[in-house]
Amino acid sequence: MSETKRLELWRARMSEDLDRVMQFWRQHSLDKEYGGFFTCLSLDGAVYDDLKYIWLQGRQVWMYCRLYRTVPRFHKPEILNDAVAGGKFLLAHARPSAHSLKCAFVVTRDGRAVKVQRTIFSECFFVMAMDELWRTTQEERYKKEAQNMMDQIVHWVRVDPSGLGRPDLPGADPVNNMATPMMLLNLVEQLSEDNKEAEQKYEELERWSVERILQHLQRDGKAILENVSDNGQELPGCSGRHQNPGHAIEAGWFLLRHAMKHSDSELIQTAVEKFILLPFLSGWDQEYGGLFSFQDVDGHCPTQLEWSMKLWWPHSEALIAFLLGYQETKDPRLLENFQKVFDYVFSRFTDLEHGEWFGYLNREGKVALTIKGGPFKGCFHVPRCLYMCEEILSRLLKEEKD
Amino acid sequence: MSETKRLELWRARMSEDLDRVMQFWRQHSLDKEYGGFFTCLSLDGAVYDDLKYIWLQGRQVWMYCRLYRTVPRFHKPEILNDAVAGGKFLLAHARPSAHSLKCAFVVTRDGRAVKVQRTIFSECFFVMAMDELWRTTQEERYKKEAQNMMDQIVHWVRVDPSGLGRPDLPGADPVNNMATPMMLLNLVEQLSEDNKEAEQKYEELERWSVERILQHLQRDGKAILENVSDNGQELPGCSGRHQNPGHAIEAGWFLLRHAMKHSDSELIQTAVEKFILLPFLSGWDQEYGGLFSFQDVDGHCPTQLEWSMKLWWPHSEALIAFLLGYQETKDPRLLENFQKVFDYVFSRFTDLEHGEWFGYLNREGKVALTIKGGPFKGCFHVPRCLYMCEEILSRLLKEEKD
Repeated sequence: MSETKRLELWRARMSEDLDRVMQFWRQHSLDKEYGGFFTCLSLDGAVYDDLKYIWLQGRQVWMYCRLYRTVPRFHKPEILNDAVAGGKFLLAHARPSAHSLKCAFVVTRDGRAVKVQRTIFSECFFVMAMDELWRTTQEERYKKEAQNMMDQIVHWVRVDPSGLGRPDLPGADPVNNMATPMMLLNLVEQLSEDNKEAEQKYEELERWSVERILQHLQRDGKAILENVSDNGQELPGCSGRHQNPGHAIEAGWFLLRHAMKHSDSELIQTAVEKFILLPFLSGWDQEYGGLFSFQDVDGHCPTQLEWSMKLWWPHSEALIAFLLGYQETKDPRLLENFQKVFDYVFSRFTDLEHGEWFGYLNREGKVALTIKGGPFKGCFHVPRCLYMCEEILSRLLKEEKD
Repeated sequence: MSETKRLELWRARMSEDLDRVMQFWRQHSLDKEYGGFFTCLSLDGAVYDDLKYIWLQGRQVWMYCRLYRTVPRFHKPEILNDAVAGGKFLLAHARPSAHSLKCAFVVTRDGRAVKVQRTIFSECFFVMAMDELWRTTQEERYKKEAQNMMDQIVHWVRVDPSGLGRPDLPGADPVNNMATPMMLLNLVEQLSEDNKEAEQKYEELERWSVERILQHLQRDGKAILENVSDNGQELPGCSGRHQNPGHAIEAGWFLLRHAMKHSDSELIQTAVEKFILLPFLSGWDQEYGGLFSFQDVDGHCPTQLEWSMKLWWPHSEALIAFLLGYQETKDPRLLENFQKVFDYVFSRFTDLEHGEWFGYLNREGKVALTIKGGPFKGCFHVPRCLYMCEEILSRLLKEEKD
C-alpha cells in the first residue's frame, strides 16, 4: 500500500469513528431535565446511574465547543446548545455552595454535591470548559470564570495548598506528581491560544510546568517515574517506582506541542525518545498486546489490582503521540508504532454497533467491563484522539500533495 | 470416603497450611529495627515497600495474640514478643500526634503518618489489637486503650461523625454501609468475651448493630445490598445496587455467631439462608468458579475495574461461614458448598512452596498479582480462616466420636 493510501485509510477510519462516537454522546448523554450530562452509560447508551462527575462535565463541554469551533461538520447549533447547557450546569452546581472556592468531584442529578476531592482536577476541567465556552460564544463571563479559577488553582499549587483541605502530616512530604504540571501545561496551552496577554501572563508558569514534568525522567534517562520528590529526586518504595505508561506518553505529546510552538528541537527529541518511545517500549505487553496500566520500574508486581488491564485512554494518547511525533520528525518508527496501536484499538476497543469505545479490557484483550461511560470515562479521550488524529492526518496528506 | 475421613482430611490440610502461613509471616514480616510489621511482601516474602498500614498492624497483633492464647502449638514466647512489639508500635505511632483522636491509615517505617482516612476502620483494628493484647498479657493499660478508643468510635458512629473530618455536603445523605455495623458487632464480640461487664455495656450496641446489618436484606429477602439508606431503604443508582458477595457471607458468619450465643434460631436461619447461601449462589462464577468481587443486583456491569477478579478473602470468609453453618444446622448443602470452595482455594490460592495465599486471581483463576501482602492484605483473613476451620473441624470430629 502506498504511503498516501495508508494515511487516507487511517483518516477515513478516524473520521467515521469520530462521527459514531459523537453520535453516541449526543444521543444518550444530555440530561434534558436538569442540564449537564449523564456519563454513566451502558454498552448501548442506557443510563445506569444519574450521578454527574464534574471532571467529565467539564471535559464534555470542552469537547463539544472545540469540535463546534474547529471542525466544520460539527458546527451545528444543537451542539453549541448542549455545550451551553453543560456550562450552565457547571456554573450553577460545580461549587458545593456559593462561597465555595473548590468544585465538587461528583454531584447528584440535580446538582447537590456528593463528594469533594482534595485535589485540583475538578477545578482544572472547569477552567477548560469555561475558556473554550468563551472562545466559542465570545461571552466575557466565561473568560472571567476561567481566569478566576485558574488564579485559584495556581495559588493552591504554588503558594499555599491548605485550601485543598489536605491535613499536614509528618510522613507526607510534598511530592511532584506528574499529573499536576501536566495539567497546568495543558491549561496554559488552552488559555494562551491566540491570546498574547494570557501567553505573557503564563510564560513563567509554562516554563515551571515543563521543568517539573522533565524531573520525572529518571535513572539516567532510562525511565519515566510518576512520582518524584519536590526537588526532583527518586522516591523510595512503590510510590517512587510507580510507572503509568499511558500517562508518560500523554505527557510526551503535551511536551511535544510545547516544544513545537517554541521550535525547541532538543525538547522535541526528549519528548519523542524519552516520554513517548521509552514508556511505549517498556509498557507494551509483549505477550498479549496493549499497554499495561501500571508498572514497577524494578519489575516488582504493582499493588494496583488493574495493573495489567488494558484501558482505553493510554491507547488514545499513544495514537495522538505517535502521529504528532511523526508529523514533526518523520521518524518511521513512530508510524510503525502508530500502526501497531491502531490495529489493537480498532480490533478491540471500538464498537461499530453502538458507538464509543469499550473502556476496560482484561490483560488478554477481552472486554472486562461493558460500560461505555462511568465515573472516570466520559466524552473526552476518545473524541479528542479521533479529532486530533484526523487533523494531523489531513495535514500529512496535504504535505504529500504539496 | 467416610464422613469422618473427609473431616480429618480437611482438618489436616487446614492445620498444615496454618503452620505454613504463620511461618511465612513470622519469618518475613517483623521489623526488627523499628518494631511493627512489614506487610508489603512479595511472592517469597521479600519486602518490596516498608510503609506500615495501621489496619494490618492491628490485625496482625490480634492474630498473633489470639493464636498464642488459644492454640497450644502457637503458645510460644517469640510469638508473644512479636505481638507486643507490634502493640508498642501501634501505641507509639498509630495516632499522628499525641493529642490526635484518630489513627492514621498508613505510616512510614519509623511511624510518621502518611495518610489519615475519614473512616473508623484503623481505629477499630487498633481496638481489636489492644483488647487481645490485654487478654494475652493481662496488662490493664491495653484494656484501657481498647475501651477509650471504642468509646470514641461509638461516639463517631452514633452521636457525632464530625470528628472524622468528612465535610457536610448537601448531596451526601447519611448511608448505612454494611461495613460499619459489621465492624461494631465484631468488636462487641471481641470485647465481651468472658467479660460480663462489657457484655452489659455493649448489649444495646450489639442489638443496634444486628438490626443495621439486617437492613441490608432487601428486595423481599432476595438480595443483600451493601449500602442502604439510614432508615433501611434501598438507595438509587450504582451505590444502591452494589453487592459484595464475600462481605455478605462474612456478615453471615458474624450474625451466626451472635445468634448461636443467644440461641436465636430464627436469626440462625436468616444468617444461613440469606447472608450465606443467597450471596454465594448469586456470587459464584458459574463459568470459571470462584466468587466475584462485586456485582450489581440488577445485572448491570459494575464500575469497579476488579469486579470479576477472584480475591482471597471472600473465599476464606466462605470457608468459615459454611463450616460454622454446618456445625450449627447439619444442613448437607453447606458441606457441599464448603467442599466446592475448599477445592477452589487449595488448588489456586495456596502456595505450598513459599507459604501464605495469593491474593488476587483474574476471573479465569490465574494469579494476577504475585504479591502475598500489600496495602490491604496482611496476616489476618487467611490465618483467621485456617484457625477457625481447624477448630470447627475438631469440634465436628469430636462430636462424631462421642
